[in-house]
Order: sequence, then C-alpha cells, then structure tokens
Amino acid sequence: MKAPKRLTLVPLAGVPRIAHGDDLPQLLSEAAAREKIALEDGVLVVCQKIISLAEGQTVDLSEVEPSARAIDFAEKYDKDARQVEVVLQQSKRIVREGPGILICETQHGFVCANAGVDRSNAPGPDIAILLPVDPDASAARLRDGLEARGARNLAVIVSDTFGRPWREGLVDIAIGSAGIAPTADLRGELDLSGRPLEVTTPATADQLAAAAGILMVKNAGVPAVWIDGIRPSGDGRIHETLRDSAQDLFR
Amino acid sequence: MKAPKRLTLVPLAGVPRIAHGDDLPQLLSEAAAREKIALEDGVLVVCQKIISLAEGQTVDLSEVEPSARAIDFAEKYDKDARQVEVVLQQSKRIVREGPGILICETQHGFVCANAGVDRSNAPGPDIAILLPVDPDASAARLRDGLEARGARNLAVIVSDTFGRPWREGLVDIAIGSAGIAPTADLRGELDLSGRPLEVTTPATADQLAAAAGILMVKNAGVPAVWIDGIRPSGDGRIHETLRDSAQDLFR
Repeated sequence: MKAPKRLTLVPLAGVPRIAHGDDLPQLLSEAAAREKIALEDGVLVVCQKIISLAEGQTVDLSEVEPSARAIDFAEKYDKDARQVEVVLQQSKRIVREGPGILICETQHGFVCANAGVDRSNAPGPDIAILLPVDPDASAARLRDGLEARGARNLAVIVSDTFGRPWREGLVDIAIGSAGIAPTADLRGELDLSGRPLEVTTPATADQLAAAAGILMVKNAGVPAVWIDGIRPSGDGRIHETLRDSAQDLFR
Repeated sequence: MKAPKRLTLVPLAGVPRIAHGDDLPQLLSEAAAREKIALEDGVLVVCQKIISLAEGQTVDLSEVEPSARAIDFAEKYDKDARQVEVVLQQSKRIVREGPGILICETQHGFVCANAGVDRSNAPGPDIAILLPVDPDASAARLRDGLEARGARNLAVIVSDTFGRPWREGLVDIAIGSAGIAPTADLRGELDLSGRPLEVTTPATADQLAAAAGILMVKNAGVPAVWIDGIRPSGDGRIHETLRDSAQDLFR
C-alpha cells in the first residue's frame, strides 16, 4: 500500500440541524460548496447522529414502557428507566454491566456503551437517538446521493464515538463505510529489512474516523469532515470487520 | 473546547534507519527542515519503534533462555520460544491467551498483543524490539530536544499500533505524550440544545495517533508525522489515562 503524501482535514461547518426526512446528500453538498470543497478523490466522514436524525432513528421516551430489568438498573444507578429500556431493546447481548453503564453488543454486532443510544443534540428533551439500522447501507446511500450531486470517487464513512477497555477517553470509530476498504491487507508484504511485516491489517476506516473526530468536537456543530489526500480504493462493509465471536477473546 | 479549523498532516519521510544512541531530535529536526516544516504550534507523532531503537530497547534473542512456559506456548503455536520468553518478561500479567497470541498487560500497564514486542524493521534477524521503558518520558525528552533545536510550542506523541477486542484491524494509539492534554475534559459543557453533553472525554492523543497512522504505512519509511492546525495545550502523561483496574470491566 502506498502511503498518502499529505492529508488535509476540513470540517463541514454550517450544516443545519437535521430532522427526519431531511435530504442529507443535498445539505452536505451545499455545506461542502460553501467551504469550497470539491467532494472528489477523498473521504467524507459523517457522524452517526445526523444520519440517525435524517433517518428518523429516534425514540420518544414518553412512549416507552420500561421492563422490570430496566427499572432495576435505573433505580440502582439513578438513570432514566425508559432510556435503559431502549438500550436493552437495541442490544443482542449485555457484554458487561458496570456502575451506571451497560456495555452492549448491539443488534448490528458493535460492542459499545449503552448500545450507542444517547440524548445529546436530540431534537427534544425526551428523545433518544439510536444508531442507524444499517450504517453500511446508510453510508452507501449517502455516497450515491452525493455522487448524484456531482461528487466523484469519494468514500463515505459513518462514525460514532466509542469508549475502549483499559483506557480512559473516547475515540471516533467507523460504524459504516462505502467506497473504501475498511482494513488494508498488507499480509505478505515485507518490512524495510525484507522480513515479513508483523503488523498487517491497518484499520483504515477507523483511523480516518478517529482523525475526523479531532474536528468533530461534540458541541461545535461539525457533523462531517472532508479528508483530502487519500484516494479511496476498494470497498467493503464495516460489518465484515467485526471479529467473529469464535475468534474473540473478550466476549 | 474549540475545534480546530483545518488539520494538515505531513509525513516526515527520509529519516535514516535509527540505531542505538542516534540523536533523534537532531535527525527529526533535519527531516522536518527537508520537508520545509516549521515544528511550531502543532503535534509531532513519532512511532514507538524509532524511539525504542534510539534508546537501545532491543533484545538479542540468541542470548535469551526460554522458560518452560515460553517453550510450551511456542511449541503449541509454532512460535519462537525465545521471543515468547521476552514477551512474558515484558508482561505484568497475561490478560488472555489465544491461538498464537498473548494479550498482555505490559509493565507500563498497556494491554496489547505480545506486550508490544516485535521484529519488523529490526536491525537484525534475531533482534526483538521492545516498547520504550517510559514512553511519556521519551516523549518529553524528544520534545525538549526538538525545542533546543528551535521547535516551538509543540506536543510530541509516541504512537504504537494496537489491535482491539471485537474488531479486526489495527489502529495507532498514543503510548506516550508531552505538551498536550491526552484527553479533553468537556464535562459540564452543553450540547447544541443546551443539554449536558453525554460524550465528554475525547481521547485527543489517541485520535491524533490514529490520524498519523494513516500516513505511517509500516514499510513506507515514515516514522513520524507532523500535524499542523491544532495548537497543543495542557499537559499530561498517557500513563494517567490508563483505566484504573478497579474500574475496568475487561480485566
């Protein structure tokens, strides 16, 4: 794999607050045009939240009936039982329960805190925002929509902000992608001395998501970042990079 | 926290192969000068390997006597028992054992595969490269050395490439830092609607390391990347961002 020569990351500011049914490709094209960004030969990283909002992936908590399990957890840790119930419904499996936090395996297979459900930047005080149903498909639709508006040879990555075991702090990670290979395959390549490389599968999409995350400060109104300098190649769904449960040492 | 307006990442190519005792601040200053980079108001991400090589953090495997445990593991998975022995010695604890892989807690407290020991780009076929003894101190020394050669207001991040649970592929992560707060603290800040933010501690140093990783393709000879556009502020050691074991759900 050839390393890019230089990368430039430009925030797409000025995207309006997104509501269900909004034409995201159109709004992002307009934001790019305002920033004089040609969406060509690069990667657009878009935060999950605006995609979920445009897709109507929200729940009105006033309509949620919490289960006994949700009520138990909520009482123990002073949480909103209705939101806990939504987290449980979004989860295939609870991986760990900590003080006030559920580490969930989502229906998609992502392992993250509270199944990715949160209320920051929600359109109302009782609205919880869910992850998109199929973030890879969301990325592909967005990419098609941008290409229909003149974008060329771009990849789209849908990012979310996850915690990690063992370390404090959160990083942005790819939960959906289109138009780029999410991991590079360097198996069989040699190091500078001619020995086989030991580190062979960079998670390109995750590195791009993390890079964009530097500019996506959560209350700065930057829901998307354009990364120039990397010519996207290959294709593949993030879903395929989720480790097979039989291979995973941290189930 | 104010979001940066635009980030530019420039690879420092042309750094010679590093040997024990080399003057890394001098060699990196020269590489930056060749690329016309002023090391000012930005972040230099340096891969762990050249730091370990400069510091002589290597082991000659021909002098290693493997223990019974190392021999067992090596025979089971067709590994080099001497290298397994080094991995065990670098570890405080084996977190998980998988097929041919040890997930270790290093003496520093990092949790990673094979305690960060590897042989890619090593100066000889029997040489294994270890992590620096104190990567935060390495970052601080390098920063001091660069400032002594004219660099101004820069942060230095030492990065390494780690795997993660649940997902395939590797990302670069910060194992040492100087001159920047490794995590931002947004607790108490409000979202765009005036609600408290739920995602409050971006792991800035890790996001910067991951971003730089895009340009540090392992056999492309790019051991350092300059990130322009982020004015480093604060300070703190990566070591302080390792999660307290009592709080960790994945021990």
